[in-house]
Amino acid sequence: MQAIEKVAIIGAGLVGQGWAIVFARAFKQVVISDKGEADTIRASLTAAAAALAKAGLGPAPGDVMARIDVATSLHDAVASADYVQESVFERLDVKREVSLAIDAALPEHAFVGSSTSGFPASHFTAECRRRDRFLVAHPVNPPHLVPMVEIVPAPWTDPVVALRTRALMDEVGQSPVSLDREIPGFVLNRLQGALLDEAFALLGEGYASADDIDRAVRDGLGLRWAFMGPFETIDLNAPGGLADYARRLGPMYAEFANQRDPDRRWRDEAIASAEAQRRAALPADRLAGRRDWRDAMLMRILKSKHRDEYTG
Amino acid sequence: MQAIEKVAIIGAGLVGQGWAIVFARAFKQVVISDKGEADTIRASLTAAAAALAKAGLGPAPGDVMARIDVATSLHDAVASADYVQESVFERLDVKREVSLAIDAALPEHAFVGSSTSGFPASHFTAECRRRDRFLVAHPVNPPHLVPMVEIVPAPWTDPVVALRTRALMDEVGQSPVSLDREIPGFVLNRLQGALLDEAFALLGEGYASADDIDRAVRDGLGLRWAFMGPFETIDLNAPGGLADYARRLGPMYAEFANQRDPDRRWRDEAIASAEAQRRAALPADRLAGRRDWRDAMLMRILKSKHRDEYTG
Repeated sequence: MQAIEKVAIIGAGLVGQGWAIVFARAFKQVVISDKGEADTIRASLTAAAAALAKAGLGPAPGDVMARIDVATSLHDAVASADYVQESVFERLDVKREVSLAIDAALPEHAFVGSSTSGFPASHFTAECRRRDRFLVAHPVNPPHLVPMVEIVPAPWTDPVVALRTRALMDEVGQSPVSLDREIPGFVLNRLQGALLDEAFALLGEGYASADDIDRAVRDGLGLRWAFMGPFETIDLNAPGGLADYARRLGPMYAEFANQRDPDRRWRDEAIASAEAQRRAALPADRLAGRRDWRDAMLMRILKSKHRDEYTG
Repeated sequence: MQAIEKVAIIGAGLVGQGWAIVFARAFKQVVISDKGEADTIRASLTAAAAALAKAGLGPAPGDVMARIDVATSLHDAVASADYVQESVFERLDVKREVSLAIDAALPEHAFVGSSTSGFPASHFTAECRRRDRFLVAHPVNPPHLVPMVEIVPAPWTDPVVALRTRALMDEVGQSPVSLDREIPGFVLNRLQGALLDEAFALLGEGYASADDIDRAVRDGLGLRWAFMGPFETIDLNAPGGLADYARRLGPMYAEFANQRDPDRRWRDEAIASAEAQRRAALPADRLAGRRDWRDAMLMRILKSKHRDEYTG
């Protein structure tokens, strides 16, 4: 089994650029392939690496950039890679076409993770010659700030490829979540969807404002969920641990769910109300600035978590 | 309208003690009433205040303790209070009895918030003479580390009391969530329940391990939810904001929900599996130590958020 030294990133959008930083800061040799202007891509990568270094979360930007080549040829990038992270536009026909192009250039030993958030690999790799080497490796945006990666095999993916993708993600400091098989939304978006369904229902039925529902998460649940998942949270919330918690509170939670309309579509009026309240809180022309704030806050939260892991 | 200077806390368990610190660090005069040993309660309060100060999140413990009296008489504590935070044992008959005792001593201008996590105020204040002065003010444990408080009026609560409770919580640095009316679980536990339902379903159906589902939250969703709620999160995740996000992704989320069994009870096998995986990760005799770690992490996360609010 060959060590992974060379990584090809296909697509230099925000996701692809984040991946380039993830692999380069972990001492991998990276080629990022895109039809865009190389200087523009390089400038944007340098800025992201500099922000990371400034936050104390990465090495000097020059060190990171020294390990990244920006190239136009997908074929050349893939042909010399041990691992390929496909990060092209989220459209099924685009994913299919690019997967076939990767397949044609893929070295015997290499394998391919797709950054898709919505499509199972079985929907766009069926015609690939080496389809056993393809799976989903779904990050959260931006991958160099949010470590979670969902690894989702297609029915024909070689199980060894899934294990090696997990090992690679661990090695470069990401946090892999392995799915046994495909399911729409994978794990992360299904969990997010379940919470959003309830949030829209509470808003639509007039129980609380959008900002107050947000507060229940950002000043309540989310503080713990930033460093413990839902199972560990309840495990610590009953004297005897998780099973004790389920015995005490399971019936209460079942009662909440059973009162709800099982059709959990978001109602138009609830969406309109949430949108109006958000625009009153944040005019549309300040969305971009708020996204920068979000990324700065993510770095701060990450740093407060890391200190514990390294010195705690 | 009288300013709130004196606060009575009824019950000196973990929740009551947390409330005592919340109000005392915000310059309120606090009496905490309990039948327990005053020296033991004072020692435990001092330790919590010291941990807070050490984390840079509170004043010197001596300053906090100088504003807290520990007393045994509920009547005397309530009779001189502007606001009462009832924090006794979570059992309906206990809540009823203590509410009647508070009612009997309550000054004309004062009002009462209950820390109950499970019972609407209408279930235990119906017989109070001044039941229009009672509502739920539900914190997360421990209240001096997790700022969210749910304010839930009974049908007979004076709306002014709900508004004044919100203003008080704002003033002392908590983060109030106002509910329009009673609903089982309020907002926080309904949101937590929705996410737990999906987590248990994914685990029970064998899609991922308990630890990997936890990772999807602690290294993914939860990093953002520590400083933005679910609505702000999706508002920043589509170019045009929340309504744009709902238009693009609402149908996908509806599809997830519609595949699910509408009976969202946690299956016994899923609970047993989660418990077994948690005990393999953390033996039961280490639960208490892990709770200390949780509180230390909460302080670290809080501090990284506060810096932004105060200087950002």
